[in-house]
Amino acid sequence: MSTAERHLSLFEPIRLGPKTLPNRFYQVPHCGTGDLRPGMQTAFRAMRAEGGWGAVCVESASIAPETDHWPVHLARIWDENDVRSLAGTCEAIHQHGSLAGIELWWGGSNSPGLETRTPPRAPSQIAVNGTPWVIPQEIRLADIAEIQAHFVAAADRARRAGFDLIYVYGAHSQGPMQFLSETFNRRTDAYGGSFENRARFWLECLEKVREGVGEKIAVTTRMSVEDFGWGGVSIDEACRFIELADDLVDYWDVNVGSLDWSTDIASSRFFPENSQQPWTSRVRDHTSKPIVCVGRFTNPDTMAAALSSGQCDIIGAARPAISDPFLPNKIRDGRLGDIRECIGCNFCLSRWAQGGAPVACTQNATAGEEYRRGWHPERFSVAANADRTVLVVGAGPAGMECARVLGKRGMDAVHLVDAAPEIGGALEWISTLPRMREWHRVIDYRRIQLDVLRNVTVVNGSRLDLEGVLDYGADIVVLATGSSWVGDGLSAATMAPIPGADASLPHVVTPEQLVLEGKEVGEKTLIYDCDGNFMGVALAERLARVGKAVTLATPAETPAEYSKFTGEVPQVRRTLEECGVTVRVESVVREIGPGAVALGGVYSEASREEEFDSVVLVTQRTSNDGLYRELDDDEERSREAGIEAIYRIGDCVAPRLIGDVVFDGHRLGREIDSASPAVHLPFIREVRVVGGYQDSDYDRQIMAEDADPAPVPQRGNR
Amino acid sequence: MSTAERHLSLFEPIRLGPKTLPNRFYQVPHCGTGDLRPGMQTAFRAMRAEGGWGAVCVESASIAPETDHWPVHLARIWDENDVRSLAGTCEAIHQHGSLAGIELWWGGSNSPGLETRTPPRAPSQIAVNGTPWVIPQEIRLADIAEIQAHFVAAADRARRAGFDLIYVYGAHSQGPMQFLSETFNRRTDAYGGSFENRARFWLECLEKVREGVGEKIAVTTRMSVEDFGWGGVSIDEACRFIELADDLVDYWDVNVGSLDWSTDIASSRFFPENSQQPWTSRVRDHTSKPIVCVGRFTNPDTMAAALSSGQCDIIGAARPAISDPFLPNKIRDGRLGDIRECIGCNFCLSRWAQGGAPVACTQNATAGEEYRRGWHPERFSVAANADRTVLVVGAGPAGMECARVLGKRGMDAVHLVDAAPEIGGALEWISTLPRMREWHRVIDYRRIQLDVLRNVTVVNGSRLDLEGVLDYGADIVVLATGSSWVGDGLSAATMAPIPGADASLPHVVTPEQLVLEGKEVGEKTLIYDCDGNFMGVALAERLARVGKAVTLATPAETPAEYSKFTGEVPQVRRTLEECGVTVRVESVVREIGPGAVALGGVYSEASREEEFDSVVLVTQRTSNDGLYRELDDDEERSREAGIEAIYRIGDCVAPRLIGDVVFDGHRLGREIDSASPAVHLPFIREVRVVGGYQDSDYDRQIMAEDADPAPVPQRGNR
Repeated sequence: MSTAERHLSLFEPIRLGPKTLPNRFYQVPHCGTGDLRPGMQTAFRAMRAEGGWGAVCVESASIAPETDHWPVHLARIWDENDVRSLAGTCEAIHQHGSLAGIELWWGGSNSPGLETRTPPRAPSQIAVNGTPWVIPQEIRLADIAEIQAHFVAAADRARRAGFDLIYVYGAHSQGPMQFLSETFNRRTDAYGGSFENRARFWLECLEKVREGVGEKIAVTTRMSVEDFGWGGVSIDEACRFIELADDLVDYWDVNVGSLDWSTDIASSRFFPENSQQPWTSRVRDHTSKPIVCVGRFTNPDTMAAALSSGQCDIIGAARPAISDPFLPNKIRDGRLGDIRECIGCNFCLSRWAQGGAPVACTQNATAGEEYRRGWHPERFSVAANADRTVLVVGAGPAGMECARVLGKRGMDAVHLVDAAPEIGGALEWISTLPRMREWHRVIDYRRIQLDVLRNVTVVNGSRLDLEGVLDYGADIVVLATGSSWVGDGLSAATMAPIPGADASLPHVVTPEQLVLEGKEVGEKTLIYDCDGNFMGVALAERLARVGKAVTLATPAETPAEYSKFTGEVPQVRRTLEECGVTVRVESVVREIGPGAVALGGVYSEASREEEFDSVVLVTQRTSNDGLYRELDDDEERSREAGIEAIYRIGDCVAPRLIGDVVFDGHRLGREIDSASPAVHLPFIREVRVVGGYQDSDYDRQIMAEDADPAPVPQRGNR
Repeated sequence: MSTAERHLSLFEPIRLGPKTLPNRFYQVPHCGTGDLRPGMQTAFRAMRAEGGWGAVCVESASIAPETDHWPVHLARIWDENDVRSLAGTCEAIHQHGSLAGIELWWGGSNSPGLETRTPPRAPSQIAVNGTPWVIPQEIRLADIAEIQAHFVAAADRARRAGFDLIYVYGAHSQGPMQFLSETFNRRTDAYGGSFENRARFWLECLEKVREGVGEKIAVTTRMSVEDFGWGGVSIDEACRFIELADDLVDYWDVNVGSLDWSTDIASSRFFPENSQQPWTSRVRDHTSKPIVCVGRFTNPDTMAAALSSGQCDIIGAARPAISDPFLPNKIRDGRLGDIRECIGCNFCLSRWAQGGAPVACTQNATAGEEYRRGWHPERFSVAANADRTVLVVGAGPAGMECARVLGKRGMDAVHLVDAAPEIGGALEWISTLPRMREWHRVIDYRRIQLDVLRNVTVVNGSRLDLEGVLDYGADIVVLATGSSWVGDGLSAATMAPIPGADASLPHVVTPEQLVLEGKEVGEKTLIYDCDGNFMGVALAERLARVGKAVTLATPAETPAEYSKFTGEVPQVRRTLEECGVTVRVESVVREIGPGAVALGGVYSEASREEEFDSVVLVTQRTSNDGLYRELDDDEERSREAGIEAIYRIGDCVAPRLIGDVVFDGHRLGREIDSASPAVHLPFIREVRVVGGYQDSDYDRQIMAEDADPAPVPQRGNR
């Protein structure tokens, strides 16, 4: 197949100063690998290059120890070891004809210094929202040249590592933006006060970096052009800055957001594709340079429109490229149905936000596994046991993915059997909840893929019991029968059922009863959310929108606490407020009776009776593993039935996030021919190995080599 | 000097099965280094051995990928690389004649699987408090042998690495305890139900590990003997288990706590030394084996009493050994005044709790720096510029520590000058606040040390201004003038002052005004805590105890949010409740007037006027850097005055936690003769370096070598 005419514009090369971007696909800097995992960094980025992204960037890279990202993990370009590791990354990206980019990060006050023990430096001494115990030092006038020299030295290391594109990172209220922003910058010297003064630091950084790296490297900056009042600049000031700096950059990479970057990491629950357009499209009139925009672009028509409308010249992407590294090549080849579209769930971010765990993706189980497990998203080896037939029971996310991978691996026959009339499992009804529609893409992609796999048969409307499985005639059986919400109130909060909680009673309701069975709730409904993810909020909104008086009680300190990791907190709060949902945090349901609930606190035994007509229990899920247990308890009968192996995957093992169950199904498919498929094969750990003190000498030697030939002026905490 | 007679019992060797502990000092397993930092692991542990701890343990070590600690970092003993790294650690510990111990950790449900992507396994399928989205799989009967085989294989690797003492870790509601506990274990098979059934898993683990490692290794278990109702067992069941298991262990390591381990990590604000005694002392009657107890022991008299009373045979310690690795040797040598006593602030824990940042200590700036910065807590080189004189202005924690280190480094003369009548800086009054008394040890230790340094002169009651510094005659000037709480309400919450906030008004009060100046507050007082650490709570308690009606408002989701990291949340909550303090979370003070405050929310602009007589502003601190600025702004005058260098340290640079400012003062002292003392010298980063894909082959080879000669039975998610 070939490129659709309407998408040809996406494949026109474009000049970025001294460099040529071979097409309009640009993987912007994003986190998930970092300096702890140089192998993952290299293989992850190279995979995006292989898939057709004309430029591929590593994530923001700290320029010096004073800007220390711990407890999350990012890239670093501090010394010659970093140059060595990142040179490998550049080489791997270049092998596919793509440009390699690096975002030089100096965080200003956004640097807790937990690892390096250096206090951050910022334009003014104002603590950081969220970590008020991190108070920066105010930069002395004489220190400014030192920080800029760090940028120049880091840029030089980046150039030597082989990067083509070098950023001065200013978006998301990082250091340069902190100088520009009146919120952060209360200086009274030449770097504060007037707009020109506040712009000076950033402009000088760009000038010095450009001068330092020479004419052969493209220099750019990343800027959030609207802060929505959270500590950055508004669009008008942003455009003014863009005019001032336009001669200093080869192109622009623009987005929105600030310290609160929920508007940039815009989840699909709250933001449509290209949600930043109203702001970023205003940049065009203020620059003569190419513009990179992001917007969770997965639809090539939207991309082409963004180019033709003049909004931008280059389609930037983080999540869509995590989800489908081969998105550009698939558009080029006209294989639009093969695009594995990002669902905007922010699972990727949620992992990084938990202490910098490695990148992962709900849609793409191979994300982050390119190096350590050697997985390629588009290539599958023929299984050593491909002559076997496989029955997969349950067509939820885990079952669909496992059947897909087994199909790709050439198994003789794969039957994916489900009792429901459609594939998708619980996600089929979850995606009918308020704001959850895009999550249906997990099903859409797999439906299309399964359709074209000749060795895979999907059977809907068939509920298999023990006899059904035994009689099916498969060599291998995979159980993917999912999970259900408990009806007795069991939860992490008390690790016990709730007295009076019984979903067979009219006033006690599970999410499935509410959504699938249409069980009625009264006017005054309590949603008891011990789960902390999307379900409680989604049901609250659903009931509130039909006029119920809804209270959302949770033992956590905040509603939907997992939203902290997915970058959705302000939106969740606004939604609950708009819907008129009453929120009760640190609340534990002690007992449920008809018409009344005893609510207590987390830190006290006391409780108080309150009137509620109904209680919806969003407390915990439990595996639907009855069928698995029956089979496992009677191995002999399975053997007699000719079944050589029984596995289980997904929620049937342990109820998890959708990304984790997709991974689980994928992994079993990848390792179906290993010695022990139920057990994960080992992965490369990327941990440093030493034999004791003696390595210290090696380390010190490395450090000595790193001594800058021309030391930058250093004042530090002088 | 020699050992005091009354402390001789602490130096009697004792048999631990096949091993002999050379004295009664035992560094129990504790976190802070981990598999990411094998060099730090080795040097940190070896330093404790050098200082006289008869046994030194690494932290809990995951036995297999299914038990994955991310987002924090612990040790791992999964493969031959771990054996190599930990063999270096054992060797270094053995060089000092100490025993090396390892705590084999299988976490049950306490394993988010963020890195390995394996779901945890637990006795029953009950989610984990705090991370309700982590729901374990229920262990199938046939899987139990596999988990136990992981223990045995890990123990074998530990033996080969050279460990003398091998734990099965059951304390803090880890896996084995989860089997024993009725809260976690709702099984109906041979491993659940009756006490004997619940004990079976743990007992079998001990049996199999003992059988596996042979007769030359001491086997033990760590057990929390009282759970205080938070998911473990009570003391009676614990003693019953100890009787059952007594033949299987060579000694016992006991503590208290559970999933909520605040009672074990007992901070000095809420628990005295040896606070676990009422529970752990009950173990004696149920065992014939030696007992290790912990209890933040720093006083050798308390230790000797714990032995003589029969409470325990061995003094276990984590924090006291972090704070003073040489505590045993100092007791042995009768140098009691030199003991650097742990203050129980839990700064160490707070760092680990933030994504596994490296261990650090308020009292001991060298903790965690033994390897990467090459610092020894008791040894100091003579400075290359020791012929210089140094004036340190400000005798708070940073100034005291800097003067101490400069004294140790043999500077010609060090003058530590402070305006106050006593040394200590802000900590002098902070330690008068409720519950903060033990923090005064930071001052006590340094006072004693400074007293004996002949080249250090402490001058109190002298406030130096610019002229005073210039005329002082020092070659080097170090400013350590601390910080103050702002009087205008500036905070991280809004990054702006609060309208109407002005501490010169009678109804607006800073912490210093309240405590140092005795400024009066009205009956109804609002404490506005944007700081999130101890200050707001301490002032609330102080005012409440004298009868004020106190409201503590904070923009955070919880009062004193930093307490999450220090393990003090339940105690903080109980204290506020007991004192009758009204807590208002997610509250932002929008405006302050006489008699009224406008209070709004974090997620809404709206605010409401409420009556308060006074407002105490615990919003942010600001550096007292006026003197530094004056000096720095007129370099010529300094030069003329013969001052060759001016540095600043501590809060004067950026207000920080006390541990960080002590570090800052220490570091400057250590590096006073470097090329650029104001800038931290580079440290060893312990990051893996690769050159690209080619390393992958090496990694795979390592993994192949690791293939177990005799594979354990593996069922995994089958």
